[in-house]
Amino acid sequence: MDAEARLAGLGIALPETAAPTAMYVPAVRSGNLLFISGQLPSEGDALLTGLCGAERSLDEAVQGARRCAVNLLAAAKGQLGSLDRVRRVVKLQAFVASAPGFTSQHLVANGASELLCAVFGESGRHARTAVAVPCLPLNATVEIEAILEVE
Amino acid sequence: MDAEARLAGLGIALPETAAPTAMYVPAVRSGNLLFISGQLPSEGDALLTGLCGAERSLDEAVQGARRCAVNLLAAAKGQLGSLDRVRRVVKLQAFVASAPGFTSQHLVANGASELLCAVFGESGRHARTAVAVPCLPLNATVEIEAILEVE
Amino acid sequence: MDAEARLAGLGIALPETAAPTAMYVPAVRSGNLLFISGQLPSEGDALLTGLCGAERSLDEAVQGARRCAVNLLAAAKGQLGSLDRVRRVVKLQAFVASAPGFTSQHLVANGASELLCAVFGESGRHARTAVAVPCLPLNATVEIEAILEVE
Repeated sequence: MDAEARLAGLGIALPETAAPTAMYVPAVRSGNLLFISGQLPSEGDALLTGLCGAERSLDEAVQGARRCAVNLLAAAKGQLGSLDRVRRVVKLQAFVASAPGFTSQHLVANGASELLCAVFGESGRHARTAVAVPCLPLNATVEIEAILEVE
Repeated sequence: MDAEARLAGLGIALPETAAPTAMYVPAVRSGNLLFISGQLPSEGDALLTGLCGAERSLDEAVQGARRCAVNLLAAAKGQLGSLDRVRRVVKLQAFVASAPGFTSQHLVANGASELLCAVFGESGRHARTAVAVPCLPLNATVEIEAILEVE
Repeated sequence: MDAEARLAGLGIALPETAAPTAMYVPAVRSGNLLFISGQLPSEGDALLTGLCGAERSLDEAVQGARRCAVNLLAAAKGQLGSLDRVRRVVKLQAFVASAPGFTSQHLVANGASELLCAVFGESGRHARTAVAVPCLPLNATVEIEAILEVE
Protein backbone atom coordinates (compact mmCIF):
# COMPACT_ATOMS: atom_id res chain seq x y z
CA MET A 1 0.00 0.00 0.00
CA ASP A 2 1.25 3.44 -0.89
CA ALA A 3 -0.36 5.29 1.99
CA GLU A 4 2.70 7.44 2.57
CA ALA A 5 2.71 8.54 -1.06
CA ARG A 6 -1.01 9.34 -1.02
CA LEU A 7 -0.59 11.35 2.18
CA ALA A 8 2.18 13.36 0.56
CA GLY A 9 -0.01 13.79 -2.51
CA LEU A 10 -2.67 15.33 -0.28
CA GLY A 11 -0.09 17.80 0.98
CA ILE A 12 -0.46 16.65 4.56
CA ALA A 13 2.55 16.70 6.85
CA LEU A 14 2.08 14.70 10.01
CA PRO A 15 2.89 16.40 13.32
CA GLU A 16 5.22 14.91 15.86
CA THR A 17 3.18 12.77 18.20
CA ALA A 18 2.66 14.34 21.59
CA ALA A 19 5.25 13.24 24.11
CA PRO A 20 3.75 10.33 25.98
CA THR A 21 2.88 10.99 29.58
CA ALA A 22 4.07 8.72 32.32
CA MET A 23 0.76 6.89 32.20
CA TYR A 24 -0.67 6.56 28.78
CA VAL A 25 0.63 6.48 25.26
CA PRO A 26 -0.59 7.43 21.78
CA ALA A 27 -0.94 3.82 20.63
CA VAL A 28 -0.53 0.25 21.84
CA ARG A 29 -0.05 -2.77 19.61
CA SER A 30 -1.34 -6.21 20.50
CA GLY A 31 -0.90 -8.90 17.89
CA ASN A 32 -1.90 -7.38 14.56
CA LEU A 33 -4.14 -4.74 16.08
CA LEU A 34 -3.01 -1.21 16.85
CA PHE A 35 -5.21 0.61 19.36
CA ILE A 36 -4.86 4.38 19.05
CA SER A 37 -5.80 6.77 21.87
CA GLY A 38 -8.59 9.26 21.33
CA GLN A 39 -7.24 12.19 19.32
CA LEU A 40 -8.38 15.79 19.60
CA PRO A 41 -8.60 18.33 16.73
CA SER A 42 -5.31 20.01 17.63
CA GLU A 43 -2.85 21.53 15.19
CA GLY A 44 0.30 22.83 16.74
CA ASP A 45 -0.81 24.81 19.77
CA ALA A 46 -4.31 25.39 18.42
CA LEU A 47 -7.31 23.27 19.44
CA LEU A 48 -10.78 23.44 17.90
CA THR A 49 -13.14 24.01 20.84
CA GLY A 50 -16.84 24.51 21.45
CA LEU A 51 -20.06 22.60 20.86
CA CYS A 52 -21.37 21.58 17.44
CA GLY A 53 -24.68 23.23 16.84
CA ALA A 54 -23.76 26.19 19.05
CA GLU A 55 -20.25 27.71 18.92
CA ARG A 56 -19.22 25.47 16.00
CA SER A 57 -20.88 24.92 12.66
CA LEU A 58 -21.16 21.54 11.01
CA ASP A 59 -18.47 22.52 8.52
CA GLU A 60 -16.05 23.52 11.25
CA ALA A 61 -16.68 20.27 13.08
CA VAL A 62 -16.12 18.23 9.91
CA GLN A 63 -12.74 19.92 9.52
CA GLY A 64 -12.06 19.16 13.17
CA ALA A 65 -12.80 15.48 12.60
CA ARG A 66 -10.40 15.52 9.67
CA ARG A 67 -7.77 16.97 11.96
CA CYS A 68 -8.40 14.19 14.49
CA ALA A 69 -7.72 11.73 11.67
CA VAL A 70 -4.42 13.45 10.84
CA ASN A 71 -3.46 13.04 14.49
CA LEU A 72 -4.52 9.38 14.43
CA LEU A 73 -2.20 8.88 11.45
CA ALA A 74 0.61 10.62 13.30
CA ALA A 75 0.11 8.33 16.29
CA ALA A 76 0.11 5.27 14.02
CA LYS A 77 3.24 6.39 12.22
CA GLY A 78 4.96 7.02 15.54
CA GLN A 79 4.39 3.38 16.42
CA LEU A 80 4.93 1.75 13.03
CA GLY A 81 7.57 3.94 11.42
CA SER A 82 5.59 4.04 8.18
CA LEU A 83 1.90 4.13 7.34
CA ASP A 84 2.65 1.65 4.56
CA ARG A 85 2.58 -1.01 7.28
CA VAL A 86 -1.13 -0.41 7.87
CA ARG A 87 -3.19 -3.24 6.38
CA ARG A 88 -6.65 -2.01 7.22
CA VAL A 89 -8.52 0.64 9.16
CA VAL A 90 -10.71 -1.58 11.33
CA LYS A 91 -12.82 0.75 13.42
CA LEU A 92 -13.38 4.39 14.34
CA GLN A 93 -15.25 5.72 17.30
CA ALA A 94 -16.18 9.40 17.11
CA PHE A 95 -17.38 11.48 20.05
CA VAL A 96 -18.85 14.82 19.01
CA ALA A 97 -19.36 17.57 21.62
CA SER A 98 -22.91 18.59 20.77
CA ALA A 99 -25.42 21.23 21.75
CA PRO A 100 -28.92 19.91 22.56
CA GLY A 101 -30.77 18.99 19.40
CA PHE A 102 -27.68 18.58 17.20
CA THR A 103 -28.13 15.16 15.59
CA SER A 104 -25.59 15.07 12.73
CA GLN A 105 -22.71 13.37 14.52
CA HIS A 106 -22.39 10.97 11.58
CA LEU A 107 -21.78 13.86 9.20
CA VAL A 108 -19.07 15.22 11.49
CA ALA A 109 -17.39 11.82 11.59
CA ASN A 110 -17.32 11.76 7.79
CA GLY A 111 -14.51 14.31 7.97
CA ALA A 112 -12.27 11.63 9.46
CA SER A 113 -13.59 8.76 7.36
CA GLU A 114 -12.99 10.63 4.11
CA LEU A 115 -9.39 11.37 4.93
CA LEU A 116 -8.66 7.78 5.90
CA CYS A 117 -10.19 6.51 2.66
CA ALA A 118 -8.15 9.06 0.69
CA VAL A 119 -4.98 7.79 2.34
CA PHE A 120 -5.64 4.05 2.43
CA GLY A 121 -8.06 3.54 -0.45
CA GLU A 122 -10.26 0.45 -0.19
CA SER A 123 -8.34 -0.60 2.95
CA GLY A 124 -9.42 2.62 4.60
CA ARG A 125 -13.08 1.59 4.81
CA HIS A 126 -13.93 0.84 8.42
CA ALA A 127 -16.61 -0.02 10.93
CA ARG A 128 -17.71 3.11 12.75
CA THR A 129 -19.72 4.45 15.65
CA ALA A 130 -20.52 8.15 16.08
CA VAL A 131 -22.26 9.59 19.13
CA ALA A 132 -22.80 12.92 20.85
CA VAL A 133 -21.24 13.86 24.16
CA PRO A 134 -22.04 16.95 26.24
CA CYS A 135 -18.40 18.04 26.37
CA LEU A 136 -14.85 16.78 25.92
CA PRO A 137 -11.43 17.26 27.53
CA LEU A 138 -10.15 20.83 27.12
CA ASN A 139 -13.51 21.78 25.57
CA ALA A 140 -12.53 20.07 22.30
CA THR A 141 -15.21 19.86 19.60
CA VAL A 142 -14.56 16.24 18.64
CA GLU A 143 -12.47 13.26 19.77
CA ILE A 144 -11.84 10.14 17.67
CA GLU A 145 -10.14 6.85 18.49
CA ALA A 146 -9.22 4.06 16.09
CA ILE A 147 -8.24 0.44 15.74
CA LEU A 148 -5.96 -0.47 12.82
CA GLU A 149 -4.78 -3.83 11.51
CA VAL A 150 -1.04 -3.75 10.88
CA GLU A 151 1.63 -5.95 9.37
CA MET B 1 -24.07 -23.57 16.99
CA ASP B 2 -27.64 -23.41 15.80
CA ALA B 3 -28.00 -19.64 15.94
CA GLU B 4 -29.80 -19.49 12.62
CA ALA B 5 -32.34 -22.03 13.82
CA ARG B 6 -32.91 -20.20 17.09
CA LEU B 7 -33.37 -16.92 15.23
CA ALA B 8 -35.98 -18.52 13.01
CA GLY B 9 -37.60 -20.00 16.12
CA LEU B 10 -37.93 -16.48 17.51
CA GLY B 11 -39.71 -15.46 14.33
CA ILE B 12 -37.10 -12.84 13.50
CA ALA B 13 -36.29 -12.13 9.86
CA LEU B 14 -33.10 -10.17 9.40
CA PRO B 15 -33.22 -7.08 7.18
CA GLU B 16 -30.87 -6.53 4.31
CA THR B 17 -27.87 -4.67 5.62
CA ALA B 18 -27.78 -1.05 4.62
CA ALA B 19 -25.83 -0.43 1.46
CA PRO B 20 -22.32 0.49 2.54
CA THR B 21 -21.33 4.07 1.92
CA ALA B 22 -18.15 4.92 0.13
CA MET B 23 -16.43 5.37 3.47
CA TYR B 24 -17.56 3.00 6.10
CA VAL B 25 -19.06 -0.43 6.22
CA PRO B 26 -21.38 -2.43 8.47
CA ALA B 27 -18.61 -4.72 9.74
CA VAL B 28 -14.88 -5.34 9.42
CA ARG B 29 -13.14 -8.60 10.24
CA SER B 30 -9.61 -8.75 11.57
CA GLY B 31 -8.33 -12.19 12.52
CA ASN B 32 -11.10 -13.91 14.46
CA LEU B 33 -12.73 -10.68 15.57
CA LEU B 34 -15.63 -9.05 13.76
CA PHE B 35 -16.09 -5.36 14.58
CA ILE B 36 -19.65 -4.22 13.83
CA SER B 37 -20.56 -0.56 13.31
CA GLY B 38 -22.92 1.13 15.74
CA GLN B 39 -26.48 0.16 14.82
CA LEU B 40 -29.57 2.29 15.25
CA PRO B 41 -33.08 1.07 16.16
CA SER B 42 -34.32 1.19 12.59
CA GLU B 43 -36.84 -1.17 11.02
CA GLY B 44 -37.47 -0.60 7.36
CA ASP B 45 -37.91 3.14 6.99
CA ALA B 46 -38.87 3.65 10.62
CA LEU B 47 -36.42 4.79 13.28
CA LEU B 48 -37.09 4.98 17.00
CA THR B 49 -36.25 8.56 18.00
CA GLY B 50 -36.30 10.73 21.10
CA LEU B 51 -34.72 10.75 24.54
CA CYS B 52 -35.24 8.05 27.16
CA GLY B 53 -36.86 9.57 30.18
CA ALA B 54 -38.60 12.20 28.08
CA GLU B 55 -40.16 11.32 24.71
CA ARG B 56 -39.45 7.60 25.16
CA SER B 57 -40.33 5.29 28.02
CA LEU B 58 -37.98 2.67 29.37
CA ASP B 59 -40.03 -0.06 27.70
CA GLU B 60 -39.87 1.63 24.32
CA ALA B 61 -36.11 2.07 24.67
CA VAL B 62 -35.66 -1.60 25.62
CA GLN B 63 -37.48 -2.56 22.43
CA GLY B 64 -35.24 -0.14 20.54
CA ALA B 65 -32.14 -1.83 21.95
CA ARG B 66 -33.54 -5.18 20.86
CA ARG B 67 -33.95 -3.74 17.37
CA CYS B 68 -30.34 -2.54 17.40
CA ALA B 69 -29.37 -6.14 18.18
CA VAL B 70 -31.38 -7.43 15.21
CA ASN B 71 -29.47 -4.98 13.04
CA LEU B 72 -26.16 -6.10 14.55
CA LEU B 73 -27.08 -9.67 13.61
CA ALA B 74 -27.95 -8.57 10.09
CA ALA B 75 -24.57 -6.85 9.76
CA ALA B 76 -22.81 -9.96 11.04
CA LYS B 77 -24.71 -12.23 8.67
CA GLY B 78 -23.90 -9.92 5.78
CA GLN B 79 -20.22 -10.47 6.49
CA LEU B 80 -20.24 -14.13 7.48
CA GLY B 81 -23.00 -15.62 5.34
CA SER B 82 -24.42 -17.44 8.36
CA LEU B 83 -24.72 -16.63 12.04
CA ASP B 84 -23.72 -20.22 12.74
CA ARG B 85 -20.14 -19.05 12.16
CA VAL B 86 -20.30 -16.85 15.27
CA ARG B 87 -18.30 -18.41 18.11
CA ARG B 88 -18.93 -15.84 20.80
CA VAL B 89 -20.41 -12.43 21.42
CA VAL B 90 -17.39 -10.69 22.92
CA LYS B 91 -18.51 -7.17 23.77
CA LEU B 92 -21.37 -4.71 23.42
CA GLN B 93 -21.22 -0.99 23.85
CA ALA B 94 -24.59 0.73 24.25
CA PHE B 95 -25.16 4.47 23.94
CA VAL B 96 -28.56 5.57 25.20
CA ALA B 97 -29.89 9.05 24.33
CA SER B 98 -31.04 10.17 27.74
CA ALA B 99 -32.92 13.05 29.31
CA PRO B 100 -31.24 14.56 32.40
CA GLY B 101 -31.71 12.32 35.40
CA PHE B 102 -32.40 9.12 33.46
CA THR B 103 -29.99 6.57 34.94
CA SER B 104 -31.24 3.19 33.70
CA GLN B 105 -29.04 2.81 30.63
CA HIS B 106 -28.15 -0.72 31.77
CA LEU B 107 -31.82 -1.72 31.69
CA VAL B 108 -32.15 -0.35 28.16
CA ALA B 109 -29.11 -2.33 27.06
CA ASN B 110 -30.71 -5.50 28.42
CA GLY B 111 -33.02 -5.44 25.42
CA ALA B 112 -30.04 -6.19 23.19
CA SER B 113 -28.32 -8.57 25.59
CA GLU B 114 -31.43 -10.69 25.99
CA LEU B 115 -31.87 -11.15 22.27
CA LEU B 116 -28.24 -12.13 21.74
CA CYS B 117 -28.45 -14.69 24.53
CA ALA B 118 -31.67 -16.07 23.07
CA VAL B 119 -29.93 -16.50 19.70
CA PHE B 120 -26.49 -17.71 20.80
CA GLY B 121 -27.20 -19.32 24.18
CA GLU B 122 -24.21 -19.49 26.52
CA SER B 123 -21.98 -18.11 23.75
CA GLY B 124 -24.12 -15.00 23.67
CA ARG B 125 -22.98 -13.79 27.09
CA HIS B 126 -20.71 -10.81 26.64
CA ALA B 127 -18.75 -8.02 28.27
CA ARG B 128 -20.74 -4.81 28.16
CA THR B 129 -20.63 -1.08 28.74
CA ALA B 130 -23.76 1.10 28.79
CA VAL B 131 -23.67 4.88 29.05
CA ALA B 132 -25.91 7.89 28.43
CA VAL B 133 -25.38 10.36 25.63
CA PRO B 134 -27.24 13.65 25.15
CA CYS B 135 -28.31 12.75 21.61
CA LEU B 136 -27.50 10.46 18.69
CA PRO B 137 -27.35 10.63 14.89
CA LEU B 138 -30.80 11.24 13.36
CA ASN B 139 -32.19 11.69 16.88
CA ALA B 140 -32.10 7.91 17.45
CA THR B 141 -32.97 6.68 20.94
CA VAL B 142 -30.15 4.14 21.22
CA GLU B 143 -27.06 3.02 19.30
CA ILE B 144 -25.19 -0.23 19.95
CA GLU B 145 -21.92 -1.57 18.55
CA ALA B 146 -20.48 -5.06 19.00
CA ILE B 147 -17.40 -7.21 18.74
CA LEU B 148 -17.92 -10.88 17.87
CA GLU B 149 -15.50 -13.80 17.75
CA VAL B 150 -16.00 -15.76 14.54
CA GLU B 151 -14.76 -18.99 12.94
CA MET C 1 5.41 -9.69 36.18
CA ASP C 2 4.84 -9.25 39.90
CA ALA C 3 1.52 -7.44 39.64
CA GLU C 4 0.01 -9.40 42.48
CA ALA C 5 2.91 -8.46 44.75
CA ARG C 6 2.68 -4.79 43.79
CA LEU C 7 -1.05 -4.79 44.43
CA ALA C 8 -0.46 -6.25 47.89
CA GLY C 9 2.26 -3.65 48.44
CA LEU C 10 -0.29 -0.95 47.72
CA GLY C 11 -2.52 -2.43 50.40
CA ILE C 12 -5.34 -3.07 47.94
CA ALA C 13 -7.58 -6.09 48.45
CA LEU C 14 -9.66 -6.92 45.40
CA PRO C 15 -13.39 -7.43 45.91
CA GLU C 16 -15.21 -10.51 44.75
CA THR C 17 -16.45 -9.87 41.25
CA ALA C 18 -20.15 -9.26 41.05
CA ALA C 19 -22.13 -12.39 40.33
CA PRO C 20 -22.62 -12.47 36.58
CA THR C 21 -26.14 -11.92 35.38
CA ALA C 22 -27.81 -14.28 33.01
CA MET C 23 -26.84 -12.03 30.12
CA TYR C 24 -23.51 -10.39 30.53
CA VAL C 25 -20.31 -11.12 32.34
CA PRO C 26 -17.47 -9.14 33.88
CA ALA C 27 -14.96 -10.14 31.20
CA VAL C 28 -14.66 -12.14 27.99
CA ARG C 29 -11.44 -13.50 26.56
CA SER C 30 -10.84 -13.87 22.83
CA GLY C 31 -7.40 -15.00 21.79
CA ASN C 32 -4.91 -13.02 23.85
CA LEU C 33 -7.26 -10.13 24.48
CA LEU C 34 -9.42 -9.80 27.59
CA PHE C 35 -12.37 -7.42 27.19
CA ILE C 36 -13.60 -6.16 30.55
CA SER C 37 -17.09 -4.73 31.06
CA GLY C 38 -17.47 -1.11 32.10
CA GLN C 39 -16.86 -0.85 35.84
CA LEU C 40 -18.50 1.61 38.20
CA PRO C 41 -16.87 3.25 41.26
CA SER C 42 -18.47 0.85 43.72
CA GLU C 43 -16.93 -0.40 46.95
CA GLY C 44 -18.98 -2.94 48.81
CA ASP C 45 -22.51 -1.54 48.82
CA ALA C 46 -21.38 2.04 48.28
CA LEU C 47 -21.35 3.72 44.87
CA LEU C 48 -19.88 7.13 44.08
CA THR C 49 -22.72 9.08 42.44
CA GLY C 50 -23.34 12.55 41.02
CA LEU C 51 -21.92 14.74 38.28
CA CYS C 52 -18.35 16.00 38.17
CA GLY C 53 -18.34 19.74 38.32
CA ALA C 54 -21.57 19.79 40.32
CA GLU C 55 -22.17 17.26 43.12
CA ARG C 56 -18.65 15.84 42.83
CA SER C 57 -15.29 17.60 42.92
CA LEU C 58 -12.43 16.69 40.62
CA ASP C 59 -10.62 15.02 43.51
CA GLU C 60 -13.61 12.86 44.37
CA ALA C 61 -13.99 11.84 40.75
CA VAL C 62 -10.29 10.93 40.48
CA GLN C 63 -10.72 8.64 43.48
CA GLY C 64 -13.81 7.21 41.78
CA ALA C 65 -11.79 6.43 38.66
CA ARG C 66 -9.19 4.72 40.82
CA ARG C 67 -11.97 2.62 42.28
CA CYS C 68 -13.17 1.70 38.78
CA ALA C 69 -9.63 0.47 38.11
CA VAL C 70 -9.68 -1.69 41.25
CA ASN C 71 -12.90 -3.24 39.98
CA LEU C 72 -11.35 -3.77 36.52
CA LEU C 73 -8.51 -5.64 38.22
CA ALA C 74 -11.00 -7.73 40.18
CA ALA C 75 -12.81 -8.64 36.97
CA ALA C 76 -9.51 -9.57 35.31
CA LYS C 77 -8.42 -11.68 38.26
CA GLY C 78 -11.78 -13.44 38.29
CA GLN C 79 -11.11 -14.54 34.71
CA LEU C 80 -7.38 -15.21 34.87
CA GLY C 81 -6.88 -16.48 38.40
CA SER C 82 -3.87 -14.20 38.83
CA LEU C 83 -3.00 -10.71 37.63
CA ASP C 84 0.51 -12.01 36.96
CA ARG C 85 -0.93 -13.43 33.73
CA VAL C 86 -1.57 -9.91 32.40
CA ARG C 87 0.99 -9.00 29.74
CA ARG C 88 -0.14 -5.49 28.95
CA VAL C 89 -2.90 -3.00 29.60
CA VAL C 90 -3.93 -2.24 26.01
CA LYS C 91 -6.68 0.34 26.24
CA LEU C 92 -8.96 2.19 28.64
CA GLN C 93 -12.14 4.02 27.81
CA ALA C 94 -13.38 6.38 30.50
CA PHE C 95 -16.87 7.90 30.62
CA VAL C 96 -17.20 10.73 33.12
CA ALA C 97 -20.66 11.95 34.17
CA SER C 98 -20.15 15.68 33.81
CA ALA C 99 -22.01 18.89 34.53
CA PRO C 100 -22.11 21.38 31.64
CA GLY C 101 -18.77 23.11 31.26
CA PHE C 102 -16.70 20.48 33.07
CA THR C 103 -13.85 19.70 30.67
CA SER C 104 -11.28 17.79 32.75
CA GLN C 105 -12.34 14.24 31.94
CA HIS C 106 -8.71 13.39 31.19
CA LEU C 107 -7.70 14.35 34.73
CA VAL C 108 -10.44 12.15 36.15
CA ALA C 109 -9.24 9.22 34.05
CA ASN C 110 -5.74 9.68 35.45
CA GLY C 111 -7.01 8.16 38.68
CA ALA C 112 -7.40 4.84 36.89
CA SER C 113 -4.29 5.15 34.75
CA GLU C 114 -2.07 5.85 37.76
CA LEU C 115 -3.26 2.77 39.62
CA LEU C 116 -2.74 0.49 36.62
CA CYS C 117 0.78 1.82 36.12
CA ALA C 118 1.50 1.32 39.83
CA VAL C 119 0.38 -2.31 39.56
CA PHE C 120 1.81 -3.26 36.15
CA GLY C 121 4.75 -0.87 35.79
CA GLU C 122 5.81 -0.20 32.19
CA SER C 123 3.28 -2.79 30.98
CA GLY C 124 0.52 -0.74 32.54
CA ARG C 125 0.86 2.12 30.06
CA HIS C 126 -2.08 2.08 27.71
CA ALA C 127 -3.96 3.78 24.92
CA ARG C 128 -6.83 5.80 26.32
CA THR C 129 -9.96 7.75 25.48
CA ALA C 130 -11.79 9.92 28.00
CA VAL C 131 -15.09 11.66 27.30
CA ALA C 132 -17.97 13.26 29.16
CA VAL C 133 -21.44 11.78 29.37
CA PRO C 134 -24.56 13.46 30.79
CA CYS C 135 -25.23 10.62 33.22
CA LEU C 136 -24.44 6.95 33.87
CA PRO C 137 -26.24 3.85 35.12
CA LEU C 138 -27.34 4.21 38.78
CA ASN C 139 -26.16 7.83 38.69
CA ALA C 140 -22.52 6.71 38.93
CA THR C 141 -19.87 9.42 38.60
CA VAL C 142 -17.57 7.50 36.26
CA GLU C 143 -17.50 4.24 34.30
CA ILE C 144 -14.36 2.69 32.79
CA GLU C 145 -13.87 -0.31 30.52
CA ALA C 146 -10.59 -1.94 29.53
CA ILE C 147 -8.87 -4.26 27.10
CA LEU C 148 -5.91 -6.27 28.41
CA GLU C 149 -3.42 -8.52 26.66
CA VAL C 150 -3.02 -11.76 28.57
CA GLU C 151 -0.84 -14.87 28.48
